[in-house]
Amino acid sequence: MSEPAANPVPPAEPAVDAGAGEDAASTSKKAAKKAEAKAKKEAEKARRAAERAAAQAASSSAANTEDNAKDNYGKETHETQYSEDAIDVHLKNLTDEHLGKKVYVRAWLQNSRAQGAKMVFVELREEGNWAIQGVAAASPEGTPVSRQMVKWIGSVNLESFVVVEATVEKPYEPVKSCRVSDYELHITKFFVHATAPAVLGMTLAAANRPITNFSDQEAPVEQAVEKLSISGEAAGIPAATMMTHLDNIVMHKRAPVQQAIADIRMEVKDLFRSYLKNLGFREFEPPCLIGAASEGGADVFDLKYFDRKAYLAQSPQLYKQTEIAGGRKRVFSVSPVFRAEKSNTPRHMTEFTGLDLEMEIRKDYREVLHVLEGVLLHIFRGIQKNCATEIEIIRQVYPSEDLLLPEPGKEVRLTFAEGQKLLREEGPEEYRNVSDDEDMSTPQEKALGALIKAKYNTDFYVLDKFPDSARPFYAKEDPKNPKVTNAFDFFLRGQEILSGGQRINDPEELIARLKKKGVDPEGPGIKDYVDVFRTGVPAHGGGGIGLDRVVAWFLNLPSVHLAAYYPRTPKRLTP
Amino acid sequence: MSEPAANPVPPAEPAVDAGAGEDAASTSKKAAKKAEAKAKKEAEKARRAAERAAAQAASSSAANTEDNAKDNYGKETHETQYSEDAIDVHLKNLTDEHLGKKVYVRAWLQNSRAQGAKMVFVELREEGNWAIQGVAAASPEGTPVSRQMVKWIGSVNLESFVVVEATVEKPYEPVKSCRVSDYELHITKFFVHATAPAVLGMTLAAANRPITNFSDQEAPVEQAVEKLSISGEAAGIPAATMMTHLDNIVMHKRAPVQQAIADIRMEVKDLFRSYLKNLGFREFEPPCLIGAASEGGADVFDLKYFDRKAYLAQSPQLYKQTEIAGGRKRVFSVSPVFRAEKSNTPRHMTEFTGLDLEMEIRKDYREVLHVLEGVLLHIFRGIQKNCATEIEIIRQVYPSEDLLLPEPGKEVRLTFAEGQKLLREEGPEEYRNVSDDEDMSTPQEKALGALIKAKYNTDFYVLDKFPDSARPFYAKEDPKNPKVTNAFDFFLRGQEILSGGQRINDPEELIARLKKKGVDPEGPGIKDYVDVFRTGVPAHGGGGIGLDRVVAWFLNLPSVHLAAYYPRTPKRLTP
Repeated sequence: MSEPAANPVPPAEPAVDAGAGEDAASTSKKAAKKAEAKAKKEAEKARRAAERAAAQAASSSAANTEDNAKDNYGKETHETQYSEDAIDVHLKNLTDEHLGKKVYVRAWLQNSRAQGAKMVFVELREEGNWAIQGVAAASPEGTPVSRQMVKWIGSVNLESFVVVEATVEKPYEPVKSCRVSDYELHITKFFVHATAPAVLGMTLAAANRPITNFSDQEAPVEQAVEKLSISGEAAGIPAATMMTHLDNIVMHKRAPVQQAIADIRMEVKDLFRSYLKNLGFREFEPPCLIGAASEGGADVFDLKYFDRKAYLAQSPQLYKQTEIAGGRKRVFSVSPVFRAEKSNTPRHMTEFTGLDLEMEIRKDYREVLHVLEGVLLHIFRGIQKNCATEIEIIRQVYPSEDLLLPEPGKEVRLTFAEGQKLLREEGPEEYRNVSDDEDMSTPQEKALGALIKAKYNTDFYVLDKFPDSARPFYAKEDPKNPKVTNAFDFFLRGQEILSGGQRINDPEELIARLKKKGVDPEGPGIKDYVDVFRTGVPAHGGGGIGLDRVVAWFLNLPSVHLAAYYPRTPKRLTP
Repeated sequence: MSEPAANPVPPAEPAVDAGAGEDAASTSKKAAKKAEAKAKKEAEKARRAAERAAAQAASSSAANTEDNAKDNYGKETHETQYSEDAIDVHLKNLTDEHLGKKVYVRAWLQNSRAQGAKMVFVELREEGNWAIQGVAAASPEGTPVSRQMVKWIGSVNLESFVVVEATVEKPYEPVKSCRVSDYELHITKFFVHATAPAVLGMTLAAANRPITNFSDQEAPVEQAVEKLSISGEAAGIPAATMMTHLDNIVMHKRAPVQQAIADIRMEVKDLFRSYLKNLGFREFEPPCLIGAASEGGADVFDLKYFDRKAYLAQSPQLYKQTEIAGGRKRVFSVSPVFRAEKSNTPRHMTEFTGLDLEMEIRKDYREVLHVLEGVLLHIFRGIQKNCATEIEIIRQVYPSEDLLLPEPGKEVRLTFAEGQKLLREEGPEEYRNVSDDEDMSTPQEKALGALIKAKYNTDFYVLDKFPDSARPFYAKEDPKNPKVTNAFDFFLRGQEILSGGQRINDPEELIARLKKKGVDPEGPGIKDYVDVFRTGVPAHGGGGIGLDRVVAWFLNLPSVHLAAYYPRTPKRLTP
């Protein structure tokens, strides 16, 4: 059969994110338009609900007449029987060997379209965007498919989870709307395993459209909680802002774009681990609960811990250094870190995943720089190579250009001072006087990123030898020039993705630098930190990468929230 | 040279953990003995400090006379020069190809022993227990090694981190006290890179002895914090209880036994991940910060989260189910979980690492059981195979017998009722009347474990079909017998290591069971949980393993605290 199923993003359906990204200072004209759109949406909702109800009623009344296929469809119970000889398959594994054979498929009903009273086309979707077209055609004798069965299939709510038996056939021409385009399923049994609501809080089509509005996370909490009910028809369908996505987390996650992002995130972790393991790194787990806010105390969450206070770790810094002191040559961790920053921006989260490493330095701190540079290039090249399909799926929603990476051996490493010089000499007018002794602002970083991209043809580069003033107390000063440190940042598309460098491993040097930075060496958490280095600790260094940012910026996503599984922001603790 | 270096656990040194494990109700005789032992220890400490001081003084006065080797030893500075042609090696990589060649080694000075005025033997240790014997012998002309250099090497505090240049030679006979027994280093340069204190809070030898006393975690916090100073001679050397180990975390970690435990822990995680990835599982990260205490609210940490409350996740249960609802077929996570239980036992921690998985059920919930059983057997067999050396190192401190595992295809799976029958019929007298409807106590579990081991020759088995009363609200009841659930526990050496089973995926069924369990279906966190299942969610199930317990019980360790990197208990938040 060649009839293609309806497009997975049906044009007839109104975009539920109409109005997204709209300016807060909307004119009354806009408001009127909005009201009109809302009314249209409500009407559309009502129409669809009525349609389904009518179909369901028709199907149930039809069920009262003779139905030779009545055992082949319906709501599944634990007594429902399937054929012993049907092959249990995943859609992505279908091959020509399955042609003409009976298969057993479990999937979401992504779309359905009746073609007269005797035929219904469906799209069935498994993990990711693995969808296939299926068709149920009633035969005159009503077996294995009857007219009643066709009607019933057409009445099943979209996104219900169904169990299907079918014969695998070649379609007349490839089914463009489905990833599995070379096969189609001729349905012989069709059971609903779990029912989705008649009207979803967010349709799959809406869930797979780009989010442009991240700002309404400012909405009061009560409202957010109320909207979590995604079941009833009574619930309003909000525009598909980030908040709507989070309120409809299940549909958000089912969207192919989010499945692909999640796959890439997983791949980044795998590439990080495998590269480092090959270099002799050992994984460890730093604790989340800590006894003192050793990294300054600002932006740290605290909690009652029995009869005293605990804090949530802001980084694994102390612990990865303790691993080195405790006899490990090279360690890494993949761990949650917490920041109690009230930053409501698409760049910030209160909980995120840190990819961290720490290693002994044998001769020169640049050993650390090279390992970090190596692992990031390995990750970027690995994603480009292993995840080409996922990147393509994501680009259909969030366009991006291929990341420009340096040729092996031609990595771009500038000193901070060289970077500032470039900004002064070739950057915008306002950066004529940037100083070598002060950290860069975000706009400066972006301007420098553009200059370096133009000059070296790369989106990825390193700035080394950051000024002393821009680095924390544990950063090792350059013995030959104490105005700068043996510390560096890495940049991707003009945004910082990594901070790293050599740490001080001598307790007296550490105390001196703590004092210089105005930190009490006897302060809570700090004394324990200093004491670690009284035990004979080798020179070492490391760095930390924010997993969410690496994923988001590699893919040019509009927000790190899209790269996280369950983003946590000052306004969101759910789902 | 054949002179073996001193034993790594020098018999001359008094055991600093003398008195460990002593009964709290000690008699006055015991107290007197203890005082005597303490005095002896203090005297020994003073003697050692005096010895080192004398050696240091001698070495510094000797340095004033002519010294042809004066550029070959001392405290390293950033101007210290090493030979360009020395091969940078790790001890574990030494081979016959290095014989006669000059190498560059960075290691901890584990032991040293002067042999007259012209020769000193050292043990140098890298990661794990990779140690090698080195020798510095003064030549008549004092080059490359002088008498002053020999004296100075003998004066270096143990556990200092040193940089050595040496020629690799075959020893006259294998060096039994070192893992690298077939080579020895003939030292030509010896620099101290980072100095350890003259008297350590805990020696390496003490750190590598078994801990028997876990009870003094009851000591007040102030005392624990005070003891964290492990540098000065003034600090008392406490008995090597668990508390002493934690107060001396660096030495605790440097001990070969802890290095080996950490290696096995890492291997367990790797085996878990690789097995599941091969079966199509995808890794995800559940959040730690959650908006509601959905799993009951007891034993949950809460914290101020800007203008409201957050909680720390007690399990990834809700989130792994959301992943399944959100379109994933099979997921796993390796994540921290938190319990605010005031349990001061060697079995409990407030933060630990959960290995969790969740998967779609296609036909029968036992698919889940088989995957979990498979991954655990893969882990156990994998450790036995890949970590034989580490197991041997650990057994020297904590003896254990090989884990008895079932032959493939002969896995032991009993129903809970069958287990109770076994207990009643063949167990101890007091279990004659155990019920099929109530959960087992820990002693019952151990008794049953012994019975099963005797009968089936395995330390690992499964109990399936737990009674309804023993399982949480999300457990699926057996449709054919609602008194039991499609849920199971796994046991290792008679202790539970895993709980798992099928979850309810129908919202109405879930609401009914919530009510039966006395939980409000509209309660905080619960309503959101129920709503997840209104979106068309396939049957699914999973299970969770406590990583710390699996490691501890596989190795027969006396406490899970030994399996953790930074154990967190009601009394300990540091280091």
